[in-house]
Amino acid sequence: MSTVRTTILDLNSFQNEDMRDVDDETQRLIKRRAELGPAYRLFYRHPVHLVRGEGTRLWDADGNEFLDMYNNVVSVGHCNKSVADAAYKQMLTLNTHTRYLHEGILDYAEDILSTMPDSIDRIMFQCTGSEANDLAVRVAEKYTGNKGIIITANAYHGNSALISGLSPAQGMNQPLSMYARVIPAPDTYHFEKMGFDHRPTSREVGEWMSGEVRKAAADFRKHGVGLAAFLVDTAFSSDGVYLESKGFLKPVVDTVHELGGVYIADEVQPGFCRTGDAFWGFEHHGVVPDIVTSGKPMANGLPVSMMAASQAVLDPFASSMAYFNTFGGNPVSMAAAQATLNYLRDNNIQEHVLRIGDRLRRELKKSSSTHPVIGDVRGSGLFTGCEIVHPGTKEPDARKTLDILEELRLNGVLTGTCGINGNILKLRPPLVFSDDDVDFFMTAFEKSVSAVE
Amino acid sequence: MSTVRTTILDLNSFQNEDMRDVDDETQRLIKRRAELGPAYRLFYRHPVHLVRGEGTRLWDADGNEFLDMYNNVVSVGHCNKSVADAAYKQMLTLNTHTRYLHEGILDYAEDILSTMPDSIDRIMFQCTGSEANDLAVRVAEKYTGNKGIIITANAYHGNSALISGLSPAQGMNQPLSMYARVIPAPDTYHFEKMGFDHRPTSREVGEWMSGEVRKAAADFRKHGVGLAAFLVDTAFSSDGVYLESKGFLKPVVDTVHELGGVYIADEVQPGFCRTGDAFWGFEHHGVVPDIVTSGKPMANGLPVSMMAASQAVLDPFASSMAYFNTFGGNPVSMAAAQATLNYLRDNNIQEHVLRIGDRLRRELKKSSSTHPVIGDVRGSGLFTGCEIVHPGTKEPDARKTLDILEELRLNGVLTGTCGINGNILKLRPPLVFSDDDVDFFMTAFEKSVSAVE
Repeated sequence: MSTVRTTILDLNSFQNEDMRDVDDETQRLIKRRAELGPAYRLFYRHPVHLVRGEGTRLWDADGNEFLDMYNNVVSVGHCNKSVADAAYKQMLTLNTHTRYLHEGILDYAEDILSTMPDSIDRIMFQCTGSEANDLAVRVAEKYTGNKGIIITANAYHGNSALISGLSPAQGMNQPLSMYARVIPAPDTYHFEKMGFDHRPTSREVGEWMSGEVRKAAADFRKHGVGLAAFLVDTAFSSDGVYLESKGFLKPVVDTVHELGGVYIADEVQPGFCRTGDAFWGFEHHGVVPDIVTSGKPMANGLPVSMMAASQAVLDPFASSMAYFNTFGGNPVSMAAAQATLNYLRDNNIQEHVLRIGDRLRRELKKSSSTHPVIGDVRGSGLFTGCEIVHPGTKEPDARKTLDILEELRLNGVLTGTCGINGNILKLRPPLVFSDDDVDFFMTAFEKSVSAVE
Repeated sequence: MSTVRTTILDLNSFQNEDMRDVDDETQRLIKRRAELGPAYRLFYRHPVHLVRGEGTRLWDADGNEFLDMYNNVVSVGHCNKSVADAAYKQMLTLNTHTRYLHEGILDYAEDILSTMPDSIDRIMFQCTGSEANDLAVRVAEKYTGNKGIIITANAYHGNSALISGLSPAQGMNQPLSMYARVIPAPDTYHFEKMGFDHRPTSREVGEWMSGEVRKAAADFRKHGVGLAAFLVDTAFSSDGVYLESKGFLKPVVDTVHELGGVYIADEVQPGFCRTGDAFWGFEHHGVVPDIVTSGKPMANGLPVSMMAASQAVLDPFASSMAYFNTFGGNPVSMAAAQATLNYLRDNNIQEHVLRIGDRLRRELKKSSSTHPVIGDVRGSGLFTGCEIVHPGTKEPDARKTLDILEELRLNGVLTGTCGINGNILKLRPPLVFSDDDVDFFMTAFEKSVSAVE
């Protein structure tokens, strides 16, 4: 029996009541996890014990093979040898920190900044996306002299004290910051919630969202709080993957600037070729951020993250104090990040992602026409949201979503869910996803959806 | 000409006015660092461009060899092959995250918890010491229902928004948290500042420090704030390395408990055999923490950190919400951490550190008797503070400290400074420090001190 979990992050997670359905070896490992405490979550009612990975594939301890449709960290493939070799070579050569000169960080800084708009000309390195966003918010506060941060309804930006308060996806037990205001995500599928009687155009979404930003800023003003930043994941990954409508962030960012705030592009999920049409998610909207953060896919699994900004925005913070992150930007991290970037470029991954992602969604849309539980298929590149609903309505069906997820696991595909109602399959595989992978996925998907209908 | 810098973290750092004394290649690299923004600091008036490391030695681009007397991250030696091999092997096998089952994290969790008191039976993994302390403070707040944190005068606990506010070493431009109260460090060398007319015994330091904690807690109460935690680095690394007097934290921790707070042992610097007499710094004082954090030396340079706690202290936080740190506790991080722990154990490093550290301080004390600028030599294991003063007084001499530091660099030794007055040489080499290294260091030290007298 499936159980609807208490918070969104808990939706696809093992609960103690599932223990009876789990084999002995898995039970043994789950029990040993008690030492990690109760805040850790395991995916699936029957958790997966992985032992090996290669490219888009993963294997469990029993030798079962899975197609990975979820993990964006390993964007150039599980166990990518060129990245591992670069890291290993540097580990055997030198690994220090930013208080000594090293060319690795300078070469990478230059290279990655060259992928961004000219105005973004400064970069600092951390180890996690949380650290990058934590720093970005402090930089925005210092630059604007304000504290107010606008976020979307089911955003997830990280786990530090500051950023947890800006991550409503953490659920009700994590209080939001007093300096946070939440606006709805641009849920163009449930357009009636946005006040439309039709699926809005990009221009209409932009006007609507600008209005939401104005309302949030006005509420801040009532409380004597000025606007510091609009912090947004341009793929709205945790909100539900709203990527199909392009360009609507342009008027929103203009509004944020007019109101005195800065625009922080959280590129942890949309960046590094994920959307196929661009290297960065903000390019998808044709906007120029004031601050850009990234993390997960930067070094294919080594803990590397970054916060880039324009000199003008960064300087008030960075000129007033020293910043040191022991592991941030170290030679091994930079070697792995450089190898990842080289791989993306040398293998024309962005172009590949655009083509293969379009094909995947074409197949999914074809499939959806015969499966009324599939309410919507949307996305860009290799980032697809697939909304599961009660047939004939647009009403979210979180239970069926979990059932499909478990069926997909049984049929050899690992993925996850997202969205404030937990009813969106989040399809976000490594970028080295092949045509055979599309075929394999579609066969498993057809079987899985049919099994729960 | 040496310049006394504006904040403590700036003391040993390159400033633009030093540019004229720097060779062309170094100038070129420094100029390229503009892209990293002004918050980054370089050690030394003439920054060092390192290209290779092995064991306790580092080499610059010109082939100059240095003895590393500073870097504690590489605790089992620069480019330790057993750690690099373990990480590389795992990189080519599997690297995922804590939402799938993996034995690496379970084996390491069990192993590292076995080095701690029985009451510490839960552990969570992050990537940096900042993240570990950020989480520890939130756990303490949730457990106690309070917000007040007591720290020492020149403490440094990390760089997140929350933890920067608990790190007075960041300088005046970083405001302390409204929920922070600062107590003096146990500066037993300048005992008159503590109100003593003699170097106090451990019992006396304990009574004095308990009194300071009571005063801080009373001030919190005046502001309606309850005590959440006493957050302390048991080596007082940034305050000035106060390790020689043992056991004085016992009555302080009892006082913290009596006042309703928890004791967070920040073991980022003292832990992992650094003090020689114990695996953890808190053991040096015979106390049992409620929460233990670590980072830097855990995986010899890969970004790995941890927060351990008793079940009772962790549960209120961890039962109320999910925690996910994408890279925290991943299979590669755990493989590197395990290999580091194995190396420490298989090579009896703790025992070695105790012996070699004692020898180093004996030699330093002998040397100090002929150099009146050396006011005090103190420490434990391979963590030594060497206080530089105006001869005949105990007055700190930050300028001379920097002069010695630069001379040491010229004589092939890299190290750093600490202390609220910036006049303490911080000698904290990799733990694989040999008798030959002691000899090499003492020769360089004698030359360097003589040169500036």
